[in-house]
Amino acid sequence: MLIHSASQLLTIAGPPQRGLDLGDLGLIDNGAVLIQGEKIVAVGSTADLYASYPDEPRLDARGRVVMPGFVDPHTHAIWAGDRAAEFEQRLQGYSYLEILEQGGGILATMRATRQASRDALVQETTPRLRRMFAHGATTIEVKTGYGLETASEIRMLEAILELDRIGPAELVPTFLGAHAIPPEFHGQPEAYTDHLCVEMLPAVFDWWLSQAPSRPLPFVDVFCETGAFSLEQSRRILTRAREMGFPLKIHADEFDSLGGARLATSLGAVSADHLVVTPSEDIQALADSATVAVALPGTPFGLAEPQYTPAKAILEAGGLLALASDLNPGTAWCENMQFILALACRYLKLTPAQAIVAATLNAAAALGLEKRIGSLEPGKQADLLILDVPDYRHLGYRFGTNLVYQVVKKGVFYSQADLL
Amino acid sequence: MLIHSASQLLTIAGPPQRGLDLGDLGLIDNGAVLIQGEKIVAVGSTADLYASYPDEPRLDARGRVVMPGFVDPHTHAIWAGDRAAEFEQRLQGYSYLEILEQGGGILATMRATRQASRDALVQETTPRLRRMFAHGATTIEVKTGYGLETASEIRMLEAILELDRIGPAELVPTFLGAHAIPPEFHGQPEAYTDHLCVEMLPAVFDWWLSQAPSRPLPFVDVFCETGAFSLEQSRRILTRAREMGFPLKIHADEFDSLGGARLATSLGAVSADHLVVTPSEDIQALADSATVAVALPGTPFGLAEPQYTPAKAILEAGGLLALASDLNPGTAWCENMQFILALACRYLKLTPAQAIVAATLNAAAALGLEKRIGSLEPGKQADLLILDVPDYRHLGYRFGTNLVYQVVKKGVFYSQADLL
Repeated sequence: MLIHSASQLLTIAGPPQRGLDLGDLGLIDNGAVLIQGEKIVAVGSTADLYASYPDEPRLDARGRVVMPGFVDPHTHAIWAGDRAAEFEQRLQGYSYLEILEQGGGILATMRATRQASRDALVQETTPRLRRMFAHGATTIEVKTGYGLETASEIRMLEAILELDRIGPAELVPTFLGAHAIPPEFHGQPEAYTDHLCVEMLPAVFDWWLSQAPSRPLPFVDVFCETGAFSLEQSRRILTRAREMGFPLKIHADEFDSLGGARLATSLGAVSADHLVVTPSEDIQALADSATVAVALPGTPFGLAEPQYTPAKAILEAGGLLALASDLNPGTAWCENMQFILALACRYLKLTPAQAIVAATLNAAAALGLEKRIGSLEPGKQADLLILDVPDYRHLGYRFGTNLVYQVVKKGVFYSQADLL
Repeated sequence: MLIHSASQLLTIAGPPQRGLDLGDLGLIDNGAVLIQGEKIVAVGSTADLYASYPDEPRLDARGRVVMPGFVDPHTHAIWAGDRAAEFEQRLQGYSYLEILEQGGGILATMRATRQASRDALVQETTPRLRRMFAHGATTIEVKTGYGLETASEIRMLEAILELDRIGPAELVPTFLGAHAIPPEFHGQPEAYTDHLCVEMLPAVFDWWLSQAPSRPLPFVDVFCETGAFSLEQSRRILTRAREMGFPLKIHADEFDSLGGARLATSLGAVSADHLVVTPSEDIQALADSATVAVALPGTPFGLAEPQYTPAKAILEAGGLLALASDLNPGTAWCENMQFILALACRYLKLTPAQAIVAATLNAAAALGLEKRIGSLEPGKQADLLILDVPDYRHLGYRFGTNLVYQVVKKGVFYSQADLL
């Protein structure tokens, strides 16, 4: 299929974009892209691809923008229940960490999730992933972390694999047993850290090898934060995971600066995420490393907190910046990556072009998948969006709605009507 | 048609809700509403309406929330062209008023709109109104103000009447010839004010009586702001309009406090809108009047400015507060009233219940239509929403997506598929 007559084709060709180089869209006016099977075969001007591929079936983009699908590299998309009542509490002035201490927050979702069967989790999560896909997220990382005990965490992994199988969104699993201290270990973070290292990580490892031997190991992630896991506990968990061969991620510096970003670099984590209160020396350490800095502007927005990730400082230091939704039932129930870009333009002071690269190619790098997805280049997977706008800058400019006209995943076309 | 088994039926019955009384949803658990023709005939519990109306055809809401349609009482929804490039300029630090001074902003849209035929305006605006309707806005105020000369302003009014006729959203027109100083009067705001009073208002009046004699006169509105119309110029225009019988609105205190809110009360304006930098004595004057205070949180958000309407102060003073989108091509291209509620919860510190009433019944009052729309009561127009959520607080809690499952306008049902 030859998609042609795009007003703008954003190829975003090349390697992930570091520092102030961020924002090179590889834009082709009146562009075209040739898809065969699950792959992109060629990109170029409409005239050139007409000439080179005269016999391909054609789809007229009618002056719309064509770009790579969004990659959402940090979500907690799978859970049971909701926390609408807690949202009201927060409006009344209770802080996120206060609610967590009272057994709300993550632990409220944990109780509902532990009680849900695998099939119930799949059923509750399906419409969320479908909405994310309809808003353009073609690859979505999904974390466990609402089980906080071996069986429930593995049930979440099972559900993630099942949801990936169902599609159409492609899922990348992450084990986040270190999301909070479960009630069984209340006041004993050291003991739960031991339990994670000695019991849970090996159980996940064994389960994975027996159930999904052909897939790469999931990421292991830790919430390094006051009230969750200290820097030393985080180091122990991630070090143990690395020894077993798991690739790493970390939640760092969301509310308090504990040194998680620097820990990520020292352990070769693929990404360090949140980074709201990261001190400048840690920003520099991140920028000097291969670890991707993932900003999650939906979370300060969701919490109505004024402080966002210092994206400009990360870029000036030469860092690799990506964007993600952080979709979760507490602080950021947002299934729309386009809205994350609108926030990034306003509160991270990115240009629309920078935000787009951060949410596609650089976001793929935050999952170690930049060779396969995130840009429109021959040989890459045919994951792309047709936006119902004449200019890519409508992303960012417009907010709160869905500008995606069609989503293409592994060469299969989905209209919005298909996704209702 | 008897819509039954709503988890929550929000009737919002009674008069517009003033001051801290704001937020009474008139909630009926397991509720039902009976519609006949274009009207609501009864509301109550599912059990009661089953008993009273055993023979009515039934629609099972399946545990969803049923509520009145949103009323959006302040939009600039009709225009030609876009200002995506200007959005990038603003990200680079140019202010809204600087861009206006350079001939951008409103004047850029004016140039495109003057060149557009009535049919072109209808065609460009149709998908915007459709998206607004799909997101739950069943009645939408639409302002002129991108013509800034008699013929173009009247062409905008014609297009608004045609779009209202096409539906499904019901439109309420406003004449905003006093939106900016047009290039023909550059540096001569007094002369343009004279022109508005002597030539444009009478021309609009005569045109309306000849073309739409059965409809009430449109609102007349003025942008009372530094760089637009001074307090005295605003007073002259609105006073002249009032003499001719037009109902009044005003843009007051968006960037600078010129006294527009107090002017609104002294002239009996139906609403005063924006109110970001309104001094406390003017807030009290508003609260002591019948003029509705309309907050437009999409605009500070769109501009990434930190200051929002002091909604709590307005409520504490006893004011009538409403919400609107301010949809426009410069500062707030947002077609989703649900997102406006999400902003209001976070930045105006309203509860979800307060935001819902401010965007339905009180918003109807901001158009003088509270007797006909804005709540679910016998005799009122059957404008309502079925939300795909179990609890009304999902409005506010969740952001950036569309939670509306079906829209009912004058008794006619629209699914999302109908509205694509």
